[in-house]
Amino acid sequence: MKKNLKLGVFGFGCVGQGLYHVLNETHGVKAEVKKFCVKNRSKPRIIDAAYFTYEAGDILNDPEIDVVVELIDDAEAAFKIVKKAIENGKHVVTANKKMLAEHLEEIYQLQQTYDRSILYEGAVCGSIPILRNLEEYYDNDLITSIEGIFNGSTNYILTKVFDERKNYAEALKQAQELGFAETDPSLDVKGFDPKFKLAIAITHTFGVFVRPENIINIGIHKISATDLKYARENNLTIKLVARAYKIKDNIFGFVAPQYVPTDHMLASVRNEYNAVLVEGAFAEKQVFIGKGAGSYPTGSAVLSDISALTFDYRYEYKKIAQGDAFPFSNEILVDAVVSFPEGSHITTRDFETFKGGYQGNGFQNLQGSVHLEKLKEWAEQDGVSVILAPQLNLAAAPQTAEVERLSA
Amino acid sequence: MKKNLKLGVFGFGCVGQGLYHVLNETHGVKAEVKKFCVKNRSKPRIIDAAYFTYEAGDILNDPEIDVVVELIDDAEAAFKIVKKAIENGKHVVTANKKMLAEHLEEIYQLQQTYDRSILYEGAVCGSIPILRNLEEYYDNDLITSIEGIFNGSTNYILTKVFDERKNYAEALKQAQELGFAETDPSLDVKGFDPKFKLAIAITHTFGVFVRPENIINIGIHKISATDLKYARENNLTIKLVARAYKIKDNIFGFVAPQYVPTDHMLASVRNEYNAVLVEGAFAEKQVFIGKGAGSYPTGSAVLSDISALTFDYRYEYKKIAQGDAFPFSNEILVDAVVSFPEGSHITTRDFETFKGGYQGNGFQNLQGSVHLEKLKEWAEQDGVSVILAPQLNLAAAPQTAEVERLSA
Repeated sequence: MKKNLKLGVFGFGCVGQGLYHVLNETHGVKAEVKKFCVKNRSKPRIIDAAYFTYEAGDILNDPEIDVVVELIDDAEAAFKIVKKAIENGKHVVTANKKMLAEHLEEIYQLQQTYDRSILYEGAVCGSIPILRNLEEYYDNDLITSIEGIFNGSTNYILTKVFDERKNYAEALKQAQELGFAETDPSLDVKGFDPKFKLAIAITHTFGVFVRPENIINIGIHKISATDLKYARENNLTIKLVARAYKIKDNIFGFVAPQYVPTDHMLASVRNEYNAVLVEGAFAEKQVFIGKGAGSYPTGSAVLSDISALTFDYRYEYKKIAQGDAFPFSNEILVDAVVSFPEGSHITTRDFETFKGGYQGNGFQNLQGSVHLEKLKEWAEQDGVSVILAPQLNLAAAPQTAEVERLSA
Repeated sequence: MKKNLKLGVFGFGCVGQGLYHVLNETHGVKAEVKKFCVKNRSKPRIIDAAYFTYEAGDILNDPEIDVVVELIDDAEAAFKIVKKAIENGKHVVTANKKMLAEHLEEIYQLQQTYDRSILYEGAVCGSIPILRNLEEYYDNDLITSIEGIFNGSTNYILTKVFDERKNYAEALKQAQELGFAETDPSLDVKGFDPKFKLAIAITHTFGVFVRPENIINIGIHKISATDLKYARENNLTIKLVARAYKIKDNIFGFVAPQYVPTDHMLASVRNEYNAVLVEGAFAEKQVFIGKGAGSYPTGSAVLSDISALTFDYRYEYKKIAQGDAFPFSNEILVDAVVSFPEGSHITTRDFETFKGGYQGNGFQNLQGSVHLEKLKEWAEQDGVSVILAPQLNLAAAPQTAEVERLSA
């Protein structure tokens, strides 16, 4: 039987307001907000002051509130709220990917210990129902890979850079003006945000917990004019791709920019859209595309979790329960293109297999198969830009398949 | 609590065998086949004869069997099996789109009357979990449209025609050899198969039952060399698109080939892949891509339904329960390109708004806005080919959106 839920919501920013509007405009969900807990007392609010409190306890200790919806920025404060809410017998909906990625094993344990549900569809690729599908639909499919565009801000920036031939700074500024990128964009452009989402997705895909600091993330912030020129001359675009594979007895996962052929499906995923490709033994290739950012799309994912709670829905973490998960590893070779100013000490001998290169205009451009850890070292050096090779795709994509897998 | 289900399966063709293999290779699903009921006694079978029966009653009247899985071709025989199974207190999983489309209201009523579940994810776009997502994830989103490539055989044929410059007959033959197209391909190429799927999807999207005979379907079988030339010269490809919209107080839906720009997302959906685009008020645009045909992909969807039954899952048909559905209508204007031999009696005055045309090589080619019923009349005339205009998309697609909606 469907329940009528009373919600206590922490945060009234972009997603909080989106949730409020979405909840008001729909009639299908039996839930209503009792209180919003916010920090800033002086900020003008679009709804009645009676809805607001500044004391977390007003929500966490209110026995009438069934569900705590956590939509604040601060990951550590968010975790405290979630923990307390669960201990107090409430269910939780959250969209805080950093908090989840950093505490996912505790989040899992809290649900078992207190027999309560924590749902977080809005945390991974906004409106795309990827966690629900991984939990429900692919529980009996042996998944071999999950990959895609997991960050809307950087995809928006890269789209503008390529479509409108903007430079990076202009595109970033425009993304910030539209609210797609934060004032401090480093979480996005350095690849941390998609990494947090990837860490969460890995758990629901492969049944293993991975600390985000163990996942290598290479950002788009060092992409140079030389790289853009190379891409344009070769009918390529650049996408920031998050990916994880099961190969033999290990799980591999990393975030890095990649050259993508312009006729590849991922190239058609533009602006703030995200895409997730899942490949499994039976369903084979599946793609989900949807908005990865924005007030309504993310608010809608949060509402969907609230709606699921009216039916007592819980993630089952079946793949963890099955207990045959493989360990996470960074011991993998990837094909990459490295560009850097002439005189850097990177040489063809640093590659496992060197495949080619050229130099000109004071730049060098080398391509080959390289260890992922080495790639990360290079990416951290001044002036060095690292982009995964398009050949990655093409080599592994079955010739008859058209939703190509971007894989090693 | 998860149940251990005993299955009685009707049919051991492509999907039945796929199910058998998928069930054997996975360990997550608590279900086992007790009997397969088949027609042909002389056909050699890949598994032990003890598994087979030729009497429907051996399954339908076996009190030990919890779930009847219906995977036969004949729609009327299938409906009789499903009805009897439900009356006998069994749950049902079926992938028979024709049967479902023609009996969906009865299928719905049977579930209410006998308090049993009938699941049919495999009937709509093979491996794509579209029904489950429409039921579960979009129950509180106000959906405005659903559209896409709903038929794998025709998409395979069209892909070969364009990519490998095969003619229609060669491409059809190849699809048949690969098992993507039936020996009698008219259900596919004349657009009946995607129409059946569309009828089912409309119910789960908009909460209204539509008789398939009320949905207009225009096939790809009359696409001419002139049309292909037009497409190639204009950077277009052709896709067979099924679509339904809520516009004002009506639901519209039809199946027809359409010119699609080669850089459009749908153009990247190739071979036997299907794609479904859902547009809603909150989640906004969402795309699902996956294999729409094949033994394993469809078998995997069937298995997913069986797995859901171990958790007592039922479609809730929430949108029907909400009771505010709009009626289905064909009163709509669409932009189309009509090509026909010179001398046909179609004139520019037959269009609501004529937009342009040319003639040459004995052919005429007219484009404009035309009533859907009129378009259907034309499509039935000898030598006349009807293809929706690419401008359909472009006019309605918001300029900043990249997963463009192919809409009027």
